[in-house]
Amino acid sequence: MDRTNQVYEGKAKKVFATTDPEIYVVEYKDDATAFNGLKKGTIAGKGVINNRVTNHLMRLIEDNGIPTHYVRQISDRETAVRKVKIIPIEVIVRNIAAGSLSKRLGLPEGTKLSSTVLEYCYKDDELGDPMINEYHIKAMGLASEEELRLIADYSFRINRILCGYLQDLKIELIDFKLEFGKTSDGTVILADEISPDTCRFWDTETGEKLDKDRFRRDLGHVEDAYQEILRRLMGA
Amino acid sequence: MDRTNQVYEGKAKKVFATTDPEIYVVEYKDDATAFNGLKKGTIAGKGVINNRVTNHLMRLIEDNGIPTHYVRQISDRETAVRKVKIIPIEVIVRNIAAGSLSKRLGLPEGTKLSSTVLEYCYKDDELGDPMINEYHIKAMGLASEEELRLIADYSFRINRILCGYLQDLKIELIDFKLEFGKTSDGTVILADEISPDTCRFWDTETGEKLDKDRFRRDLGHVEDAYQEILRRLMGA
Repeated sequence: MDRTNQVYEGKAKKVFATTDPEIYVVEYKDDATAFNGLKKGTIAGKGVINNRVTNHLMRLIEDNGIPTHYVRQISDRETAVRKVKIIPIEVIVRNIAAGSLSKRLGLPEGTKLSSTVLEYCYKDDELGDPMINEYHIKAMGLASEEELRLIADYSFRINRILCGYLQDLKIELIDFKLEFGKTSDGTVILADEISPDTCRFWDTETGEKLDKDRFRRDLGHVEDAYQEILRRLMGA
Repeated sequence: MDRTNQVYEGKAKKVFATTDPEIYVVEYKDDATAFNGLKKGTIAGKGVINNRVTNHLMRLIEDNGIPTHYVRQISDRETAVRKVKIIPIEVIVRNIAAGSLSKRLGLPEGTKLSSTVLEYCYKDDELGDPMINEYHIKAMGLASEEELRLIADYSFRINRILCGYLQDLKIELIDFKLEFGKTSDGTVILADEISPDTCRFWDTETGEKLDKDRFRRDLGHVEDAYQEILRRLMGA
């Protein structure tokens, strides 16, 4: 299986077709963007870390019975994944108020939500990934009702798997973003990445931010935070 | 039953307590605001028209089996209503894309939605009535799951009642906003108003706007549009 043509380049990743029609290769970049691309920068070593962190957590999720696109790590920055058509819905899972939720609803950052909140955004860069709900998804035909039920069910289960696992590493999972895709036979599986780019991780004891908010908010020690997450996950 | 102290003053209405502890009096004003209060003005005669239009449609809805706060019209601008505690959720029902939906999702105004869309906003002027979903409503305790199910069911039924009725009057119901309240015994009933302030009404044949968008967008003939809606409803 060899890389052939590039099929996609996003803010943090490139995706390549391969000689196997069911397999793509993802390559993680060090580029970082925030605020819908308004802020741009580089986080040295991020691609390597996010590749390893994502694969580690994808395996954990797969081991707990949820299908993912993960196949195998190829190199420091590259991973073979199952080819999917991405469902154009970002799922945000929130345990504790932070970021846009805090701002929009006036809930101070750090407020524990009395129940887990799912949010859906329509993946469209030009529109700024606007928030949508189940009714928009149905009217726009973005996913069937059955697919959306499965996506919500998987998202809650992934949240429980990750929260339990990360708690033992003294990492609080504040919120995170998921994307799902459909394989050629229509199966819905978890795709994209799970990393400090797409999650808010706070140190359980100090509350220190160990995620992309350090870049978004110019908090310094960005690379250290990414490395600390990798270190804890790898048990080094 | 006499008016006593004012309990609320909003953008378009005042609400008064009365000597009957279960009854409030609503008084409709001619004041108009738009864009979360950024645009202010007056629409001559609006209070009288909205009072009559709302009562007419509330009776129609009540006759079709959905409980409303309507009791009886007292004067040109005043109506007696059942006292409720307003549930702080605005329900937007959308049949055709217009306004904020068109802008947010890039759907041209006038696009027929393949299925009716419900949106929920958190009633909070300071926050600008942000959009929320079922999960936010649960986490913030704004309504119980059973109450929300009832609100959604009533909203869809009210939409069918109004669409059918207005179609005969050559009025297309594009979208509208509903608010619900709870009586002292916890019953959920329809409250607030249903008028050209809270609905988008388009003439079925010409597409002419017969609602508050004429004020929002400076289209002229604002008063005429309100009067035209009243005229069609009253069969004059």
